[in-house]
Amino acid sequence: MTTRVPQQDRSRVTRQRLLDATIDVLAVDGWAACSVGVVAGRAGVSRGAAQHHFPTREDLITASLENIFERLTNMATDETDRLPPGANRIEVAVARAVAFYTGSEFKAALQVWSAAASDEALKKLILPLEGRFGAAAHQMTVRMLGVDDSDPRVHRLVQATLDFARGLGLADTLSDDSARREQVVAAWAEQLKISLS
Amino acid sequence: MTTRVPQQDRSRVTRQRLLDATIDVLAVDGWAACSVGVVAGRAGVSRGAAQHHFPTREDLITASLENIFERLTNMATDETDRLPPGANRIEVAVARAVAFYTGSEFKAALQVWSAAASDEALKKLILPLEGRFGAAAHQMTVRMLGVDDSDPRVHRLVQATLDFARGLGLADTLSDDSARREQVVAAWAEQLKISLS
Repeated sequence: MTTRVPQQDRSRVTRQRLLDATIDVLAVDGWAACSVGVVAGRAGVSRGAAQHHFPTREDLITASLENIFERLTNMATDETDRLPPGANRIEVAVARAVAFYTGSEFKAALQVWSAAASDEALKKLILPLEGRFGAAAHQMTVRMLGVDDSDPRVHRLVQATLDFARGLGLADTLSDDSARREQVVAAWAEQLKISLS
Repeated sequence: MTTRVPQQDRSRVTRQRLLDATIDVLAVDGWAACSVGVVAGRAGVSRGAAQHHFPTREDLITASLENIFERLTNMATDETDRLPPGANRIEVAVARAVAFYTGSEFKAALQVWSAAASDEALKKLILPLEGRFGAAAHQMTVRMLGVDDSDPRVHRLVQATLDFARGLGLADTLSDDSARREQVVAAWAEQLKISLS
């Protein structure tokens, strides 16, 4: 058994490299470009090795979708405990919510999301994953803000903040929106300060 | 000349029916499904007649993209003058901004937008159209709110409102989000009331 461990490790590393490359290909080049061959090339993995892990494009997309939302959900869970002491809670919380939706993971998810409009099987896959990530993002934002989510007004303001962050993510897909975004995020945080304090 | 007018009218009506059907196909069935043949079928127009107007899928998509953003821009222009007297300006303004991004036009645009990630020619087409619509939506929201957009704080709150509306649009693409949306929109309108009054 022990001699097989390095092989298993290599296999796991290769699989993860392919999944990472899939996010990159989807986010940068889009849905149509995302084939097993292109992803293998991006990952620096032979086509044969890639097909060993993902025989079909569908296998790759399915595994990648789970990987993307797992990463997003983990981001939402991890970030919670890392609020710098003394930081401006509200500004940091809003900036982190926005970060979920402006990274490569969300851009990749958006490509699968669009494709799911014409693909019922894909839609069935993406809906629960998206729901789980949405719940994690909501809980993280509540904890970072240090607010009482059982207050309906607070609950809705947290939701509005995540909707706002999602809209910023979308605005960033075709062109770099970061300069404008910074100012708008500051304005939103200012609003929350008024209403949550 | 006079005998040709009805023929020209018919031709114009057919073209518009094809463009309307394209929005429907894109919004409901997605990018991959949107061919000249499918659109012709949806419009109740023969394939030959459709191909007379749009010889290739690219011709159809290009014309449709202009049509979609023209409709969105016109919506933003038209709505301005129709604010019911005595209405709650802020609630109505926010609801109308949200309506831009939750209708079929935006869902159709989103499909083209996603495809543009891997298509430079499409990206070059969509960016100025999107910019023009964005500007019209901003101006409409400013006018409906009756606020001074030269105030940087106000300008950013209007932008934030449109980013928020865009995020709500995206949340509505895979499942009907209207019940939740109504409450979140009310919460944000409440915020704007506090900060703009």
